[in-house]
Amino acid sequence: MQRTSFSEQHCSVARTLDIIGEWWSLMILRDIFYGVHRFETLLAQLGISRKVLTQRLQRLTEEKILRKVQYQANPPRYEYRLTARGLDLLPVLLSIMRWGDRWLTEEGQIPVEFVHSECGQVTTPKLVCAQCGGELTARNLSPRPGPGAAQEEIESMCAASRNPKLFK
Amino acid sequence: MQRTSFSEQHCSVARTLDIIGEWWSLMILRDIFYGVHRFETLLAQLGISRKVLTQRLQRLTEEKILRKVQYQANPPRYEYRLTARGLDLLPVLLSIMRWGDRWLTEEGQIPVEFVHSECGQVTTPKLVCAQCGGELTARNLSPRPGPGAAQEEIESMCAASRNPKLFK
Repeated sequence: MQRTSFSEQHCSVARTLDIIGEWWSLMILRDIFYGVHRFETLLAQLGISRKVLTQRLQRLTEEKILRKVQYQANPPRYEYRLTARGLDLLPVLLSIMRWGDRWLTEEGQIPVEFVHSECGQVTTPKLVCAQCGGELTARNLSPRPGPGAAQEEIESMCAASRNPKLFK
Repeated sequence: MQRTSFSEQHCSVARTLDIIGEWWSLMILRDIFYGVHRFETLLAQLGISRKVLTQRLQRLTEEKILRKVQYQANPPRYEYRLTARGLDLLPVLLSIMRWGDRWLTEEGQIPVEFVHSECGQVTTPKLVCAQCGGELTARNLSPRPGPGAAQEEIESMCAASRNPKLFK
């Protein structure tokens, strides 16, 4: 796929999707979060091809999202565990799940619930501002170039966008 | 791609990824969140092919994530706006961006910042429990079948998972 330098080089959405932005990668990570760690079990559970599962696990391991841990010596057998970097993808998966629960699921028919051990309740995830604790919505956020933005991208986005609050 | 009934029918991650789980769809949504609404501008901005952009916009419109709004009568011209369902995808995009900012970006070199109008600060998104306000992490959440889970899937996941807290 053709990708512009804007997409590829100076956008954290693009960079992240380059690694995890593929249907199967996120489904594999979902199952590993659920506690499924071994190749053959993932294979059976996901209904994925052996080739694709091998490729995706290799990529996720190269990107240090998963690490291989030996669980049997003779013959050597490995399982896949989430690294700190991988565990930190939980908000991505939970945000995707919450959206599907809200918009693609019949009222009350949520397939998987998460109990939050801090309060003991079935949780509904909410994205808030770490600075003030207020909820983050499309209505109360204004994007602007950060220290890592390239000048030509700033100009390009300013010209393209009709969001009056954008890139001032 | 082959997908099992578990993936396809009773999982909000799978259902959501069926709609938005494609690199370009999320990049298109990112630009529309940034205020880019018109076909030709998205085309130029994203460096995407005309065919793929057309297909993705059509799918996102069919799924009621975007709506077409006429902005010119003669000849008729349309732009793409986020629906309530689309605006509610912001936590997905922000979670993806936050992860990339943290793990794929050099210290201090964040490409895009978001100012939160409620507190006026550059925000760092944080996923919390809507019930108690505590942060949600891989360490303090236990998945379990919800009302919409199918019995055979529960049994299958219980057998597959080695997470002691899972699906008790």
